[in-house]
Amino acid sequence: MSASAQGAADGAVAPFRVGLLGHGTVGSAFASLLDERADEIERFNGRRPVITGVLTRTRGDFEEILADSDLLVEVMGGIEPAREYLLTAMRAGKHIVSANKQLLSQHGEELFDTARAHDVRLRFEAAVAGAVPVVRVLEESLSATPIERIHGIVNGTTNFILTEMTRGCTYAEALAEAQRVGYAEADPSDDVSGRDAAAKMAILARLAFGSPVHLDDVPYEGIEHLHGDDLEYARELGLGLKLVGTAERRQGGLSVHVHPTFLYSGHPLASISGPFNAVTVESETITELTLSGPGAGGRQTASAVLGDVVSVMTGGARPPAPPLPLRLVTDVESAYYLHLDVADEPGVLACVTKVLGEHEVSIKSVVQRGMGEHARLVMVTHPVLESGLRAAIAEVDEFDFVRSPTRSIRVIEEEFV
Amino acid sequence: MSASAQGAADGAVAPFRVGLLGHGTVGSAFASLLDERADEIERFNGRRPVITGVLTRTRGDFEEILADSDLLVEVMGGIEPAREYLLTAMRAGKHIVSANKQLLSQHGEELFDTARAHDVRLRFEAAVAGAVPVVRVLEESLSATPIERIHGIVNGTTNFILTEMTRGCTYAEALAEAQRVGYAEADPSDDVSGRDAAAKMAILARLAFGSPVHLDDVPYEGIEHLHGDDLEYARELGLGLKLVGTAERRQGGLSVHVHPTFLYSGHPLASISGPFNAVTVESETITELTLSGPGAGGRQTASAVLGDVVSVMTGGARPPAPPLPLRLVTDVESAYYLHLDVADEPGVLACVTKVLGEHEVSIKSVVQRGMGEHARLVMVTHPVLESGLRAAIAEVDEFDFVRSPTRSIRVIEEEFV
Repeated sequence: MSASAQGAADGAVAPFRVGLLGHGTVGSAFASLLDERADEIERFNGRRPVITGVLTRTRGDFEEILADSDLLVEVMGGIEPAREYLLTAMRAGKHIVSANKQLLSQHGEELFDTARAHDVRLRFEAAVAGAVPVVRVLEESLSATPIERIHGIVNGTTNFILTEMTRGCTYAEALAEAQRVGYAEADPSDDVSGRDAAAKMAILARLAFGSPVHLDDVPYEGIEHLHGDDLEYARELGLGLKLVGTAERRQGGLSVHVHPTFLYSGHPLASISGPFNAVTVESETITELTLSGPGAGGRQTASAVLGDVVSVMTGGARPPAPPLPLRLVTDVESAYYLHLDVADEPGVLACVTKVLGEHEVSIKSVVQRGMGEHARLVMVTHPVLESGLRAAIAEVDEFDFVRSPTRSIRVIEEEFV
Repeated sequence: MSASAQGAADGAVAPFRVGLLGHGTVGSAFASLLDERADEIERFNGRRPVITGVLTRTRGDFEEILADSDLLVEVMGGIEPAREYLLTAMRAGKHIVSANKQLLSQHGEELFDTARAHDVRLRFEAAVAGAVPVVRVLEESLSATPIERIHGIVNGTTNFILTEMTRGCTYAEALAEAQRVGYAEADPSDDVSGRDAAAKMAILARLAFGSPVHLDDVPYEGIEHLHGDDLEYARELGLGLKLVGTAERRQGGLSVHVHPTFLYSGHPLASISGPFNAVTVESETITELTLSGPGAGGRQTASAVLGDVVSVMTGGARPPAPPLPLRLVTDVESAYYLHLDVADEPGVLACVTKVLGEHEVSIKSVVQRGMGEHARLVMVTHPVLESGLRAAIAEVDEFDFVRSPTRSIRVIEEEFV
């Protein structure tokens, strides 16, 4: 006889009561998914999850829902009142599952401290990369492994836009298409600016390295200013363009940032296209591990939320340990792609490479192409400190033969396998 | 003050005692990794894991190790005495972490039943796909999601050999190279026959679908008989060759099998090269999720074992629920690649397609190439029942103009995204 049938027969097992804060796309998808899966979850766990209250902008009372719940699911988004609700609930001994990346990337330590102090679970798989279980894998599987580096495509909107641009669309056309098919919002600025990805990288960095990282600590750069011809040149060099978040140990500290980045075609993130998300974790012990899948969507995010609810029911998954702060390092070495518009005159390449060399910028590959009176120089450098590169570009751009400001984009080389 | 410092200060927290059965490559890597990570694990969990006994072929006493352990790590491999040790240990209330795919794929239900009966944890992440946390993700993250299908590259040896063959090596050359670099054993038959992959797919199918699957229930086919020219033709058709394990719901039942398989280049498994493993999980709720990483290696496997030890320490991870057996379906539909050597005469293609059509085998693409007196016909079919395809090939091979037995290889088409 199954656990479910036994539970029903003796009637002794109380249901697991879930209060739902927020009933938008994710909230309503969660409610129906929970309904569909309740039998199976009860069979597995011996307890049946049921929604005992729903709070929306117009209905429901927080205190009543709190009193009638074992766990609160928070899918409201935003900082307040979500933060106050979650703190209150944890102080009352309730477990929390949240999909709120803004809140976790700006008030994570306060939430983690409260969860530890009141010995409740605080789960947030759905806050990063939707249905891709990177939070769980970092917290649990990799707790045995010292992590060196994480690279993530953690924003599906921008990955969709860049995929379209790679196929020849302009940025404006690709954005319009993303809005038409529902991958971008009417106001896409949080996505295309890189801010959304920065919030997610702050959360992943905390889990991977144990150091508190606030959203405001994460430098980010978006995709709005990318040129179609950069993508074209890059293809000739065997590079693909992604918006990549990086969190890595550098110079005894921690570096976390989000930038448009060229990847060599063999990189595990290079083949991630459309609205998908993917995260690559590198460590000496495991070399590298990649997780990929749909990064958003109501059903997908709801399944991550429900997975968290189940993991609380099975009793695992403690909140992160108290932080061990690392120094944040902002000036780090990368390889760069450089794009210069110059007059088509003798000696230009020599002048440019001389200045670059004076700033320790060494060139790995060059494509030069005449375009009538002017020429394009496209280069990939060996790894160089960002400060050195910026200084070199500033000096190069002072030459009269440089026709427009030099563009630079980071490049991730194959380091593993 | 950290949890670790508190524990040390009041001296109240007993260490978590780990007995180690087996001290080969994985066992010794586990012992040193545990040593390296003990501080960090203690900081996170408040308890320090320590190895309290080691059993090898020549030293150690099982009863003593058992008495002095909270958990046994089993990395001996083989069926006996591993099975008897684990059953005895669970009956004595000890938790188990095992990397033993043979044992789990042949005696899984007995082990799971015993774990449930004695309320102990039984973890086995390292038994499938090394450091790739597919066991955990199936058990935990996806418990909220009804799974439709799993495709896995779960044997790194064969993936390495096929990668080399794609680069132009013969099977024999690729195998020799795999042995030289340590990816294949002196006797590679368990790997190249597909049996190792079949054991892993039996375990994954149990987790994903809740139905008991014994290794003997899994039809498998190896890579020993693959021809280099199949790979060449397939490349022209945009296909890459992998040894793929599949577990999927079919016709109200469950189909589990391992075969050399052509994948369209957009498939998430198509880009997995070298000794890596990867698993793709498809479901209506999440569309598809892919995990990839190193499939073997002492340190990598040891890190999966240690991750399991940590998860037992944190109290999560129950054994799988009692099984809900599904009927095993063996005759399922696939698309196929066909390779015919025929006389170069008029009417041959018409004869072949007529016979195929009579068996409901419909053709998606054809490449015909004259080779002097004979010709090669390479086709990809639309999905067809294996029984129908086998009958069609048997009839085709009776034609006088067919010069050698027709070869067939499964093809996975892009169905998702």
